[in-house]
Amino acid sequence: MREFSPDFRSELLELMKWRRDVRHFKSDPVPVDLLRDCLDTFQLAPSVGLSEPWRIVRVTQDETREKAVSNFQSSNREALAGYEGDRAELYAGLKLSGMREAPEHLAIFCDDETPKGTGLGARTMPETRRYSVVSAIMNFWLAARTHGLGVGWVSILDPDRLRRDLDVPENWSLVAYLCVGWPQEDTLTPELQTVGWELRDPRTIDWFER
Amino acid sequence: MREFSPDFRSELLELMKWRRDVRHFKSDPVPVDLLRDCLDTFQLAPSVGLSEPWRIVRVTQDETREKAVSNFQSSNREALAGYEGDRAELYAGLKLSGMREAPEHLAIFCDDETPKGTGLGARTMPETRRYSVVSAIMNFWLAARTHGLGVGWVSILDPDRLRRDLDVPENWSLVAYLCVGWPQEDTLTPELQTVGWELRDPRTIDWFER
Repeated sequence: MREFSPDFRSELLELMKWRRDVRHFKSDPVPVDLLRDCLDTFQLAPSVGLSEPWRIVRVTQDETREKAVSNFQSSNREALAGYEGDRAELYAGLKLSGMREAPEHLAIFCDDETPKGTGLGARTMPETRRYSVVSAIMNFWLAARTHGLGVGWVSILDPDRLRRDLDVPENWSLVAYLCVGWPQEDTLTPELQTVGWELRDPRTIDWFER
Repeated sequence: MREFSPDFRSELLELMKWRRDVRHFKSDPVPVDLLRDCLDTFQLAPSVGLSEPWRIVRVTQDETREKAVSNFQSSNREALAGYEGDRAELYAGLKLSGMREAPEHLAIFCDDETPKGTGLGARTMPETRRYSVVSAIMNFWLAARTHGLGVGWVSILDPDRLRRDLDVPENWSLVAYLCVGWPQEDTLTPELQTVGWELRDPRTIDWFER
């Protein structure tokens, strides 16, 4: 079997650290061939029954981008209304998406009814199709980072509204809306941690035994 | 920003190819420190609102393993009943899990109601918590593979029955049941492709534009 060296292993851990959520982008464009190279790693992801249920929409038109930004803004306003006092103030000050500046927007869907794979492995847990799509996104995210590209995952969106605005089939579920571009900042600290919203626990992982 | 060399990049692609689903394991044990090292990469995964909603159950007792195997067997029988003719014959001949031989079984859950992250980013798309868990699994899977360990994701299970059998809280959802161990085979071809169940399309990825 293919072996991997200790040096490679420690560099992989470095990459996993640098694969962080980016919300501050430069507006410089991403070469389309580079974007394609990174997206090609989708095909190396696990997919249940080899169903490859990922569907990628590159949002390029100004009008469509604007609809996505507006979707985020209203979802974000509603989310803010759910917090009170200090939390609300903190929330209001957070930069939760880099949609305005990011040169590339990718809406990643799962085709919940793809015939590919003929349903193998997805009968009792059909959600594994969507999990396959998440796996592909992780491959893409790591690959993008090796090229210096940053990715930000926006989840503060009304997924049905986005699906309609992008005019994609009803059986496609939104899994992620990704902003892609060159990061403005060189930092390993997540923004939420910087402002004290939530901390990452720097500990070894716990498990339960049964 | 941390830069990554072209050599590292191409080795990462190799790793993504070798991160395949393993169903044929040797029974040799996995050192517990190695397992822990690989699981520690969960903490480098993205998680919505820094909620870190992953919960890991290591299934070590014979009785509990047996319940999980039995769960798989009945779910698999029911799945087989859904196919007819050649497909049924093909399905019946597939090895769909390495649960009997794999030295380690990990049931990976998402705590859907974790207060950590105070719900940030998960209001309109609460499923992103589970997607965070999938991201963590991908980190683990890649890390494990750098050590030569194989991972197999079993999704042919009744998730509620498994949750009850493992006696975990009701608000934990099963995301994946992982078999972990040393692979018997050195192959890059998925079993489903070998037998002609489904092919992977060796093409560049397509996207739609909007």
